[in-house]
Amino acid sequence: MAATARLAARARPLARPNPGVAALVVQHGRVIARGWTQAGGRPHAEAMGLAGLAPAALAEATLYVTLEPCAHESARGPSCADLILAARPARVVIGQLDPDPRTSGAGIARLQTAGIETRLLDDPASAASLVGFLTRQRAGRPWVTLKLAISLDGCIALADGTSQWITGETARAHVHAQRARHDAILVGGGTWRADAPRLDVRLPGLETRSPQRVVLTRGAAPDGVTAISSPEAIAGLDSVLHLYVEGGAETAAAFLAADLVDELHLYTAPILIGDGRRSLGALGLASLADAHGRWHLHERRQLGSDQFTAYLRSRNS
Amino acid sequence: MAATARLAARARPLARPNPGVAALVVQHGRVIARGWTQAGGRPHAEAMGLAGLAPAALAEATLYVTLEPCAHESARGPSCADLILAARPARVVIGQLDPDPRTSGAGIARLQTAGIETRLLDDPASAASLVGFLTRQRAGRPWVTLKLAISLDGCIALADGTSQWITGETARAHVHAQRARHDAILVGGGTWRADAPRLDVRLPGLETRSPQRVVLTRGAAPDGVTAISSPEAIAGLDSVLHLYVEGGAETAAAFLAADLVDELHLYTAPILIGDGRRSLGALGLASLADAHGRWHLHERRQLGSDQFTAYLRSRNS
Ligand SMILES: NC(=O)c1ccc[n+]([C@@H]2O[C@H](COP(=O)([O-])OP(=O)(O)OC[C@H]3O[C@@H](n4cnc5c(N)ncnc54)[C@H](OP(=O)(O)O)[C@@H]3O)[C@@H](O)[C@H]2O)c1
Ligand SMILES: NC(=O)c1ccc[n+]([C@@H]2O[C@H](COP(=O)([O-])OP(=O)(O)OC[C@H]3O[C@@H](n4cnc5c(N)ncnc54)[C@H](OP(=O)(O)O)[C@@H]3O)[C@@H](O)[C@H]2O)c1
Repeated sequence: MAATARLAARARPLARPNPGVAALVVQHGRVIARGWTQAGGRPHAEAMGLAGLAPAALAEATLYVTLEPCAHESARGPSCADLILAARPARVVIGQLDPDPRTSGAGIARLQTAGIETRLLDDPASAASLVGFLTRQRAGRPWVTLKLAISLDGCIALADGTSQWITGETARAHVHAQRARHDAILVGGGTWRADAPRLDVRLPGLETRSPQRVVLTRGAAPDGVTAISSPEAIAGLDSVLHLYVEGGAETAAAFLAADLVDELHLYTAPILIGDGRRSLGALGLASLADAHGRWHLHERRQLGSDQFTAYLRSRNS
Repeated sequence: MAATARLAARARPLARPNPGVAALVVQHGRVIARGWTQAGGRPHAEAMGLAGLAPAALAEATLYVTLEPCAHESARGPSCADLILAARPARVVIGQLDPDPRTSGAGIARLQTAGIETRLLDDPASAASLVGFLTRQRAGRPWVTLKLAISLDGCIALADGTSQWITGETARAHVHAQRARHDAILVGGGTWRADAPRLDVRLPGLETRSPQRVVLTRGAAPDGVTAISSPEAIAGLDSVLHLYVEGGAETAAAFLAADLVDELHLYTAPILIGDGRRSLGALGLASLADAHGRWHLHERRQLGSDQFTAYLRSRNS
């Protein structure tokens, strides 16, 4: 199941607006086929994984799939449950239940009714690979990652606004790779006017992956850019499962104060700035106790001389 | 040599005002004796290490010592060079040359003249164990460690000054252990007045290790506390080889602006504060390029849910 979830990374972000699902077919302990959701969301992972396999092999094989196979036909093709019934693998193992009300449980029921041994896990790796889709379904908004490039003392720029460069090349390449994994990038109106950021992916081979650009502003949208007038308005960003918020301080604070940040990416450079621009505006904290218990360390790595740390919002759900 | 340098940690800080030196005696690959500078600086490590060893064993043994043996007699006892000449080990290996002009090179010369095979290394581990003493000798001031307990966004307190607690118990115990390793602790007049900090060591068994307390102030010294009126005045703190600066923001910035910080200890809690008190005042930076290249990562560890990172000032000397 873990290998299947890793494979799902390949589907992201081009599968949008569909979830990036992955499937593996295993016969006698050997992987005989794999698939993942293709660009634009079709074909689905199961179709890719099952295509062209011999019925004799399938009769002894297990299909692993990160998300419950869909049970509803669409104009774009048959449902995955139908495809699986036609292919008839011996067993199906599913990482996560589909929260889409058109499928939720119905996909599993159809397989079981047809006599295919079907097991539903609550697999954390599958959940992590589907986090944008699951957040859209459950909370009606994309998964939000806030990125900050800061000095050791928490500044994002000198007092005069100079912020090029806080971090080094390796960290900046990491940011471009993150952009390529997101469906949209958002900055505040202040950063848009100050830095006129290109917000594109400048990595060889990934130039075409530049995501949709979004600006948080109470004013009009700049040309070629989507504007939203409050953090809550991210709910209306169609086809966006993963949103990357790149600052500045007021925008970061607005998303945090609205509790709309799920993941925090800090790139910390080994420099001290002192009286520079701070990374965050007011969050409206009542006490220090309030600040605790919200974030837990998820990943830490050295990027050249900079430190990358990722924190996840701790939610009890 | 590395084992000898590790042993030197035991001499610190009680050896003050003398360097915390360590010695190992090795015969046929086995350690047969060890010693380190005792409380108050006497007896020296060599005296402790050589005491009571049989001449026959010494004749086949190597004495490892982190610092060049002293060559000058003092009212408090014979020189270490004399002690070694009397004991006559086969070989002496020395980690670092003594920069004290009364010894520098003279200790080695006396051993060699007397026919004892003597080797001088420039051993980094020995240098690290002697860093307070070497800095006193070469720069005329103690080795300075600046400690900051901060949120992920670089705040040291809420806007109203509340700073208890940013970090958790494990981190605070680590701070108390650091205090026990230092000869003096310094805070600014603002922190002294705001927090009336005890600045003592509250760890079982180490209560007696509480170091000298120093306040940076343009005003008068509080009772029982040493006052200095500028960061540069640390040169006059007698018997202080290792100074621990605990803030606040203005004091930290004053030491950094004077380039008097050798080591930076950051305790970073997984919390965001936003518009709190910043960790540093103005540093007088002209550009971002100026901020780079000054610090390199020395140590990183997790302390409960907090992160500890130590940076060393990069100096070309
Ligand atoms: N080191 C880094 O990681 C990094 C990243 C980004 C930016 N920066 C630096 O940060 C600075 C800009 O930061 P900033 O804090 O001044 O500006 P900002 O957050 O980029 O933009 C502030 C603007 O965002 C809009 N906004 C904020 N909260 C809102 C809300 N709740 N609802 C609707 N609109 C909202 C408003 O736009 P309108 O005025 O258009 O209505 C507001 O004026 C620049 O110096 C930039 O270089 C650094
Ligand atoms: N989280 C942490 O790690 C931490 C640690 C310590 C403090 N804090 C917090 O920090 C706050 C206090 O910080 P702060 O920046 O206001 O005060 P501060 O740095 O503790 O003290 C400022 C005072 O230090 C003296 N001073 C500073 N620079 C000097 C110089 N170059 N020469 C001579 N004297 C100098 C002056 O004292 P006089 O006015 O006496 O002349 C000045 O008023 C408190 O809220 C405290 O709780 C947090």
